[in-house]
Amino acid sequence: MSSTTHLLDFLEEPIPGVGTYDDFHTIDWVREKCKDRERHRKINAKKKESAWEFTKSLYDAWSGWLVVTLTGLASGALAGLIDIAADWLNDIKEGVCLNAMWFNHEQCCWGSNETTFAERDKCPQWKSWAGLILGQEEGPGSYIMNYFMYIYWALSFAFLAVLLVKVFAPYACGSGIPEIKTILSGFIIRGYLGKWTLLIKTVTLVLAVASGLSLGKEGPLVHVACCCGNIFSYLFPKYSKNEAKKREVRAIIYYFPLKTLRLVLFYVEYHTPWYLFELIPFILLGVFGGLWGSTRFGKYPILEVIFVAAITAVVAFPNPYTRQNTSELIKELFTDCGPLESSQLCQYRSQMNGSKAFVDASPNKPAGPGVYAAIWQLCLALIFKIIMTIFTFGLKVPAGLFIPSMAIGAIAGRIVGIAVEQLAYYHHDWLVFREWCEVGTDCITPGLYAMVGAAACLGGVTRMTVSLVVIVFELTGGLEYIVPLMAAVMTSKWVGDAFGREGIYESHIRLNGYPFLDAKEEFTHTTLAREVMRPRRSDPPLAVLTQDDLTVEELQGIINETSYNGFPVIVSKESQRLVGFALRRDITIAIENARRKQEGILLTSRVYFTQHAPTLPADSPRPLKLRSILDMSPFTVTDHTPMEIVVDIFRKLGLRQCLVTHNGRLLGIITKKDILRHMAQMANQDPDNIMFN
Amino acid sequence: MSSTTHLLDFLEEPIPGVGTYDDFHTIDWVREKCKDRERHRKINAKKKESAWEFTKSLYDAWSGWLVVTLTGLASGALAGLIDIAADWLNDIKEGVCLNAMWFNHEQCCWGSNETTFAERDKCPQWKSWAGLILGQEEGPGSYIMNYFMYIYWALSFAFLAVLLVKVFAPYACGSGIPEIKTILSGFIIRGYLGKWTLLIKTVTLVLAVASGLSLGKEGPLVHVACCCGNIFSYLFPKYSKNEAKKREVRAIIYYFPLKTLRLVLFYVEYHTPWYLFELIPFILLGVFGGLWGSTRFGKYPILEVIFVAAITAVVAFPNPYTRQNTSELIKELFTDCGPLESSQLCQYRSQMNGSKAFVDASPNKPAGPGVYAAIWQLCLALIFKIIMTIFTFGLKVPAGLFIPSMAIGAIAGRIVGIAVEQLAYYHHDWLVFREWCEVGTDCITPGLYAMVGAAACLGGVTRMTVSLVVIVFELTGGLEYIVPLMAAVMTSKWVGDAFGREGIYESHIRLNGYPFLDAKEEFTHTTLAREVMRPRRSDPPLAVLTQDDLTVEELQGIINETSYNGFPVIVSKESQRLVGFALRRDITIAIENARRKQEGILLTSRVYFTQHAPTLPADSPRPLKLRSILDMSPFTVTDHTPMEIVVDIFRKLGLRQCLVTHNGRLLGIITKKDILRHMAQMANQDPDNIMFN
Repeated sequence: MSSTTHLLDFLEEPIPGVGTYDDFHTIDWVREKCKDRERHRKINAKKKESAWEFTKSLYDAWSGWLVVTLTGLASGALAGLIDIAADWLNDIKEGVCLNAMWFNHEQCCWGSNETTFAERDKCPQWKSWAGLILGQEEGPGSYIMNYFMYIYWALSFAFLAVLLVKVFAPYACGSGIPEIKTILSGFIIRGYLGKWTLLIKTVTLVLAVASGLSLGKEGPLVHVACCCGNIFSYLFPKYSKNEAKKREVRAIIYYFPLKTLRLVLFYVEYHTPWYLFELIPFILLGVFGGLWGSTRFGKYPILEVIFVAAITAVVAFPNPYTRQNTSELIKELFTDCGPLESSQLCQYRSQMNGSKAFVDASPNKPAGPGVYAAIWQLCLALIFKIIMTIFTFGLKVPAGLFIPSMAIGAIAGRIVGIAVEQLAYYHHDWLVFREWCEVGTDCITPGLYAMVGAAACLGGVTRMTVSLVVIVFELTGGLEYIVPLMAAVMTSKWVGDAFGREGIYESHIRLNGYPFLDAKEEFTHTTLAREVMRPRRSDPPLAVLTQDDLTVEELQGIINETSYNGFPVIVSKESQRLVGFALRRDITIAIENARRKQEGILLTSRVYFTQHAPTLPADSPRPLKLRSILDMSPFTVTDHTPMEIVVDIFRKLGLRQCLVTHNGRLLGIITKKDILRHMAQMANQDPDNIMFN
Repeated sequence: MSSTTHLLDFLEEPIPGVGTYDDFHTIDWVREKCKDRERHRKINAKKKESAWEFTKSLYDAWSGWLVVTLTGLASGALAGLIDIAADWLNDIKEGVCLNAMWFNHEQCCWGSNETTFAERDKCPQWKSWAGLILGQEEGPGSYIMNYFMYIYWALSFAFLAVLLVKVFAPYACGSGIPEIKTILSGFIIRGYLGKWTLLIKTVTLVLAVASGLSLGKEGPLVHVACCCGNIFSYLFPKYSKNEAKKREVRAIIYYFPLKTLRLVLFYVEYHTPWYLFELIPFILLGVFGGLWGSTRFGKYPILEVIFVAAITAVVAFPNPYTRQNTSELIKELFTDCGPLESSQLCQYRSQMNGSKAFVDASPNKPAGPGVYAAIWQLCLALIFKIIMTIFTFGLKVPAGLFIPSMAIGAIAGRIVGIAVEQLAYYHHDWLVFREWCEVGTDCITPGLYAMVGAAACLGGVTRMTVSLVVIVFELTGGLEYIVPLMAAVMTSKWVGDAFGREGIYESHIRLNGYPFLDAKEEFTHTTLAREVMRPRRSDPPLAVLTQDDLTVEELQGIINETSYNGFPVIVSKESQRLVGFALRRDITIAIENARRKQEGILLTSRVYFTQHAPTLPADSPRPLKLRSILDMSPFTVTDHTPMEIVVDIFRKLGLRQCLVTHNGRLLGIITKKDILRHMAQMANQDPDNIMFN
């Protein structure tokens, strides 16, 4: 609010640096918003003066759209680039395209005349490493050669990724979502959304995905998009100079792709009905999703990356469901078995011996050897994915959790789906199946189970409910599955919440000690403000400044002796009546500035925050007026205010601190950190974990 | 917050009536939320005591779901009932089903053997009034007879509707949306969501729709659903006893149908592409929608209903597009002309002379006489609908604006669509058409124009942008039209905003003087709190209570002399240090209660708000302790606080009043009404229009 006080003291020039923040500090939303409104008013007032000013105001009004559009274009292009590069590098693990190195496996065979539709990934142009080195494509020797090369490349990519992150941009690791949530809530982490992070995250994301580690691209892509948004926002003074407006752009960029990107990923279209008894397996999948969501992921240092990458490569290669690209795996699991489907998962017996009459008589088909093999491989893949994802998410490489979670859910769902289907086939005389499964129709759709499982696991991880169902429901393009999805997602949320209310991102925020005040978390204790405020009973009294009887030396003494970020200013020690609040950083800058620029300011100069200078003895040096840095409208609550209201105020207004009074006298102060520490204490967590200001 | 102070004075019993509100008053969100949290804590604490308490806590936790489910079922049933009854009454205007009075026209002919698919609404069982009275269905005499009966019934329905509203439930008129928005924001209007309003609104909505007035059902249906929700919430103590929780349920009910009901209304499916040059007509439709949205609707007394209904009936009968049910009209306008379409709108010449080669050579077809006739009738219908809707919306009958607005937009859109189509046909050598319209394809889809027009008019009326596009985009089931819809809706919003920032509901709220603080409206002035607070400079000083030196008589004197809703309590007149805030209603109830129940309370008794009684002379009567009704954590701001921050606090925390201090001394008070008056003043509106507290 010091910006508004400038209005009152418009004779004084604003002091450069006042109103900025240190790294790892929390911004004051109210102050930033006021600053922006004042800037807006100034532009609007000048608008009618000249054509140039009018153009400037138009530019200012449109700059939001421009930033978002530019960011959308840039991050879309980067996402495409990452996709193409990761695909290509991923195929490099298996072989190389002879006539055009830069083609991946699929592109390589597009131009080939010898490729048929059924075997579209086999063509002479594409050489596996065994083919290239040993000169033969088949046989155990080639298999071992290919296996070895697969592990070699996976390890190389993982090593390169972790090295780049370590050396150039330590902020590029992980998914970035917890940090972005914290930044959006008003925390400053310099460089987290900078150009180096952008560059290194883009490159290492390609490497990490290509290395075959069990990780997703979606979270890191959101980080990449936010970096783009941040960089573009520096082109526009509306955003570059205001921490709150910057966060607005980032929030748009953060929420927009989350809601829309996934729309196009896994579009499936089937409209087979579901039956009431199927709710039981769906709810079981929900329980599984909730359990998955309450898994605690570890944090592992750099060397482990190589180790995890090696194990992943060794185990993933022999199993087609783990070697495959995860997105493609999910797509395959979601798809229903139609007559055209050639996948191993659809090798039912009726289709193999071709007895048409047999199919018509029974609603479900008996599994063929292909399906049995697939089930075993899926079970192994499930165990592998669960273990590997737990270890991968904490690694120091860019790593998302959406796709691995969806894959785990889809695998579990498909297994359950096939099991229920076979149960319905072999026990079609059971009451449930006799009642619901009409003769001659496909009764169970295993693809639907995969979808429900994926939604349940995503729900467990993110703790979203309705919005997640809307997302998955947009994927399927039909209203039919809203009840199964809702049942699974709600179960998953309840099971997850039973093991701890926070989603994976919230728990990472807490582990890192970021000052994030969760809007969802209810504060249900009966504490009053006076029990949370500092100073506590045993503490030294609150460090305050009096409005007109301190010298520069005394003021500097108070600042140097304490480490507080700001000081209440009071009328006098006796009355303890509150005048305003001054930030440490602003005071330091203002004193330095005054001593450099204003003549006659000495250590013995009187400092005053009032409108008019106090009457001083004739021989005293020139006094220093600091009213322009005084926030004359600090937020206050009384000592009797319940903490639930205080928490509400902090959350809704985005405060940094709040002063506590009793019958008009200043008693103490509550900062965001105090609230977070108090909440941690109430939840029996370590309050000293909240590290930043 | 008095609830929390109860905690401190738990020896005292709560006084019945304290903490309730008068009609046309504003609730205190913070206090209500605190009350609910305390109730929740009590239930949670008792939960483990016995199985009965545990069941009670489960019931409490599930009551929200129960209320919403019950309301959903009841309002769904009512909506269906209204639909069926309105359809039946609407058809009564034209004729009657001979063998079953309770069938409407369509149902009447379902059972008939003589009905063909093409003429499915013609069957001997259905008799027009001319057929029934004059014994002949054709000829000018019959036409006049039918015309007369049509007007007669329309007038009867309108008269009955307005009579019922006037006599039994005046709150049943209009759409109800502005009032529900105000109630949701925390205002008390007793009976607005009661059983009488529900009953009368349901009946009169049927009558009003059947009378053929240009009005929609959607807004009134939301009101009906909110009434159901309100009635069901009285079954659960969690909701019946807390004004804030009641509003939570209503908000769910208010927002849910708005988002989903419309999904099923007009499902159309075409995937023809659109071309870049079409953006020009789409943007023109957006301009039209914006102009429509800035139309100011009047308010008319009861007699006008008959007048408007008569004109509507007289003009609507001859034109098929105005006689038709509005929803069906919109559906027809949205539909693309396929080979199976028999509507007049699709009578293009190629289909009439059957020259196949001609069709293939040209992208668009020349209009036949049917299309030309349709265009003229559509133009007349457009003018008629615009005028009639403007006059109808202010009538004292239940009336919504969604469907009429969509109809107006769809008519305008279809007209523009056909015009562009014919332009493309007759001038296919123009650059734009040569470039984009390939030979042999349907280049222009007039149905798409109708959809864009409807979206633009809805957008103009509601000022929604992204959420509206999502709604319309769900209607079409395809991603293709997101750009045309976005272009039209954004243009419509900009044009509408240029004529005044508020949508139709906001302007009705303002006209009615409801205390509604719009979350979207930005406060952009530089006023400070001291300029808005009362007392002003010329006013008498603020009415305050001192904490321990008033007698009951003096206190009652202060209350009777003033009309304020509450009084700040201070330490002493000299210090002006603030202790808390006491509500007028609570003080009155507490004094009455004490004089009835506590012995020795006289007019000369000392009143004290402190923890301990003041020392009194030996012969003085027993003092009265009022600490339990004292809100010891009133919100305060300093006099230097910019009003933009104060407005923000009121909005985000749902305050009713806020005290203003300077250097720890009480200066004045700002209420929600003061803020609304100030905002009206700043916008050059009449500040005395804000009527309620």
